[in-house]
Amino acid sequence: MTDLIELLREGLPAEAVLTDPDVTGAYAHDMASFCEAGAPAVVVLPRTVEQVRHVCRTATALRVPVVPQGARTGLSGAANASDGCIVLSLVKMDRILEINPVDRIAVVEPGVINADLSRAVLEKGLYYPPDPSSWEQCTIGGNIGTASGGLCCVKYGVTAEYVLGLDVVLADGRLLRTGRRTAKGVAGYDLTRLFVGSEGSLGIVVGAVLALKPAPPEQLVLAAEFPSTTSACDAICRIMERGHTPALLELMDRTSVRAVNTMGNMGLPESTEALLMAAFDTPDPAADLAAVAELCTAAGATEVVPAEDAAESDMLLQARRMTLPALEAVKGVTMIDDVCVPRSRLAEMIDGTAAIAAKYGLTVGVVAHAGDGNTHPTVCFDASDPDESRRARESFDEIMALGLELGGTITGEHGVGVLKREWLARELGPVGVELQRGIKQVFDPLGLLNPGKLF
Amino acid sequence: MTDLIELLREGLPAEAVLTDPDVTGAYAHDMASFCEAGAPAVVVLPRTVEQVRHVCRTATALRVPVVPQGARTGLSGAANASDGCIVLSLVKMDRILEINPVDRIAVVEPGVINADLSRAVLEKGLYYPPDPSSWEQCTIGGNIGTASGGLCCVKYGVTAEYVLGLDVVLADGRLLRTGRRTAKGVAGYDLTRLFVGSEGSLGIVVGAVLALKPAPPEQLVLAAEFPSTTSACDAICRIMERGHTPALLELMDRTSVRAVNTMGNMGLPESTEALLMAAFDTPDPAADLAAVAELCTAAGATEVVPAEDAAESDMLLQARRMTLPALEAVKGVTMIDDVCVPRSRLAEMIDGTAAIAAKYGLTVGVVAHAGDGNTHPTVCFDASDPDESRRARESFDEIMALGLELGGTITGEHGVGVLKREWLARELGPVGVELQRGIKQVFDPLGLLNPGKLF
Ligand SMILES: Cc1cc2nc3c(=O)[nH]c(=O)nc-3n(C[C@H](O)[C@H](O)[C@H](O)COP(=O)(O)OP(=O)(O)OC[C@H]3O[C@@H](n4cnc5c(N)ncnc54)[C@H](O)[C@@H]3O)c2cc1C
Ligand SMILES: Cc1cc2nc3c(=O)[nH]c(=O)nc-3n(C[C@H](O)[C@H](O)[C@H](O)COP(=O)(O)OP(=O)(O)OC[C@H]3O[C@@H](n4cnc5c(N)ncnc54)[C@H](O)[C@@H]3O)c2cc1C
Repeated sequence: MTDLIELLREGLPAEAVLTDPDVTGAYAHDMASFCEAGAPAVVVLPRTVEQVRHVCRTATALRVPVVPQGARTGLSGAANASDGCIVLSLVKMDRILEINPVDRIAVVEPGVINADLSRAVLEKGLYYPPDPSSWEQCTIGGNIGTASGGLCCVKYGVTAEYVLGLDVVLADGRLLRTGRRTAKGVAGYDLTRLFVGSEGSLGIVVGAVLALKPAPPEQLVLAAEFPSTTSACDAICRIMERGHTPALLELMDRTSVRAVNTMGNMGLPESTEALLMAAFDTPDPAADLAAVAELCTAAGATEVVPAEDAAESDMLLQARRMTLPALEAVKGVTMIDDVCVPRSRLAEMIDGTAAIAAKYGLTVGVVAHAGDGNTHPTVCFDASDPDESRRARESFDEIMALGLELGGTITGEHGVGVLKREWLARELGPVGVELQRGIKQVFDPLGLLNPGKLF
Repeated sequence: MTDLIELLREGLPAEAVLTDPDVTGAYAHDMASFCEAGAPAVVVLPRTVEQVRHVCRTATALRVPVVPQGARTGLSGAANASDGCIVLSLVKMDRILEINPVDRIAVVEPGVINADLSRAVLEKGLYYPPDPSSWEQCTIGGNIGTASGGLCCVKYGVTAEYVLGLDVVLADGRLLRTGRRTAKGVAGYDLTRLFVGSEGSLGIVVGAVLALKPAPPEQLVLAAEFPSTTSACDAICRIMERGHTPALLELMDRTSVRAVNTMGNMGLPESTEALLMAAFDTPDPAADLAAVAELCTAAGATEVVPAEDAAESDMLLQARRMTLPALEAVKGVTMIDDVCVPRSRLAEMIDGTAAIAAKYGLTVGVVAHAGDGNTHPTVCFDASDPDESRRARESFDEIMALGLELGGTITGEHGVGVLKREWLARELGPVGVELQRGIKQVFDPLGLLNPGKLF
């Protein structure tokens, strides 16, 4: 232990090595409830690739586990410390190294905050789509670690689609460059993509080449109120079936709407059973918005209100982005499911979730990236009540089981972490798990990187 | 050997096992020149997943290599037989199992021809973008094997972007299901993506869930003539820098234009040094086409001609798609490079290629998916002339070296196969190669699947 700290200090400036337990304790876990977390031996905050390599070499020499961390906004415990580990926080490596409008790429360090990058590229007329609701906090390294999504995905896809190449420090300190700076490339197995969503278990991302798009026009949002989630889901299916390409297509159930109103005084329609938001960011969205309004009405919407302008649209999105914290305020704690089903099964998923909530006598708010079939059933509970906590965990699991039954996945964007480990094995099956373990073994034969996550 | 055939016959109908050397010889290689190819022991044409499993189990039991094949239109020898191997042709597994407009997916067997799928989904108002110029022949399995591209990529991306999930038979006959039917999903390492572009070296794709887009309006093509490739490349950079999103952005140099005119009487402008084609498939492409025309003129275009209608647009694209066969007709044989560079380096790539052609005294026609920086310098030579053949091979290699120097990759879409094996190692570096070999070992520990390809 003293050995470890001393060795680390040999390659790191004093202020980059934190050992005070009061301080290091703050790095023990991310934003997920119900996840075990250990006490780190030390937290390191490197500023250079060389320093990261030193940390990994030291860890390998002493066989100490390493837990990479971004902003710890994760929702599955994937960044949680294990006992005696080195927490390797990348937040100080936060430089944007290049923004190139001709090649439409950005080159960044892993600690860059998502929203900072978005703003920086926008200044050059460019757009970095991935927009998790945590964008003002979360880092690009964490986004890559979890393959995170957001509101934009129904049109623009997830983080994975925007990672062209990576610089990675392997567990033993060797440096690997994957992928490319070019728009296309198929040289060998796609290691870049393998790292995206690998939750820090294969290597430490120390640099990334990201693809950018031209900045689209500001989006206009339409809000539609439905008398039932079923009718809202029906509208969603018709919108997609008719070939529309909304820039977002989001659903909030009654519980979510009320929670947001309570927290933020947002003036969302209290009486609605389901609020649908659709947006278009095309140069002339009028025709699409009108067609979508009509489909909503045909599906039973009681009220369809297009935002008058960008400011009103922003307000609606702000309300939507507030949902998770607002649901958290209901009972103090939440567990957030992340089940993604084929969109044709969305209504069954949401109805089934309501049945599970009723069965366990719990409040479960559902907010969904509905255009992608990606639901976030959010179980609200009082953590000081052991029985309610148990019911929360059981309902959380039952919701995943329902997702799998409907041909879905246990995680659309939040990852597996410690929270869904057993469920990952259920989803992948034994052959899949064996191969995934084999891959882990190739990259990290000593099992030092983020142990206990994924499987 | 008799053992092998007998065992294979136990699980396959008689007509699915071909042993006549005159027949099996026809399955020895794909469309690449200069690639070694062995003589298969047997060719099998299974129709079911169970039959494929039987083939792999038999191969594992007898330690016989298996070479999966689609339509053998590959351009890098990736489907070439090795001596004594089982050629496993998937062309008879050619059913489209499902097209679902709400979920925007198709479920297909691997032998489905690309253009057949495109037509089938179009009938339902949907669009399967990947469009290699070989689309009337090549199979979805082969497209997945090579991660192939086409003209659409500058707007719609490559095959990889459209593969959501796979059914794969492993070397030992076990069945693996990867990925999902859902729009999003991040459960574990991305094995789906690992298979895309793996050139049959990790498993046999026996089924795929593909993502579809809504069918866009017909595209309108604009053609611009330039006095030099440099000025054409300059126009390309400006078009992309200004935030346009063309549905294709293609470049043909003078040699390509003349070859196409000679072969097809297409009436392309003979005197031009570089012909640029840009297309838009938005509902109202007029503004974009006008802006692009202006940028072309500003960059020095001597003539800018928007197609009058869809028929004229189709003619231009047909001419473009004819380039490879037309260049082949110049001297009888070609070697087609596939170097992709950052588009800001495109002019250097094309100029450098001209210098290499001059140095070796050869004709090298360049056609490029220019918007992506993906060039196909096509070395024309007379294979009966040993000295010319040697020079062809050397110039082919020198073009790849140039691509790497410019920050590019040796293959944007055609893959590695046998043709670029040494070059793959150069591009990946020793750490990358070691990890890739490790992955191969996990999936195919006996090394039976498509041996000698990639590395
Ligand atoms: C209010 C709120 C809203 C959210 N909304 C969304 C949403 O809309 N969509 C969505 O997808 N997620 C959402 N999330 C979840 C979370 O923000 C994302 O998962 C995000 O990508 C995590 O980034 P981070 O920097 O906080 O990473 P962390 O939580 O610190 O780490 C996440 C994972 O990545 C690994 N990691 C981090 N950095 C590196 C690195 N440099 N190299 C290797 N591995 C690394 C960690 O080990 C861990 O496994 C939300 C969270 C909150 C609290
Ligand atoms: C005239 C012409 C134009 C072309 N234009 C383009 C273009 O624009 N863009 C482009 O990208 N390519 C192009 N190509 C190259 C070629 O058509 C593509 O690489 C195509 O994807 C190959 O498909 P195939 O069915 O012929 O596969 P094959 O050549 O038979 O096989 C390709 C690879 O995939 C593997 N494979 C095939 N089926 C399976 C399976 N079911 N499971 C596992 N592995 C499998 C093979 O082992 C091999 O490694 C062109 C070729 C020609 C001849």
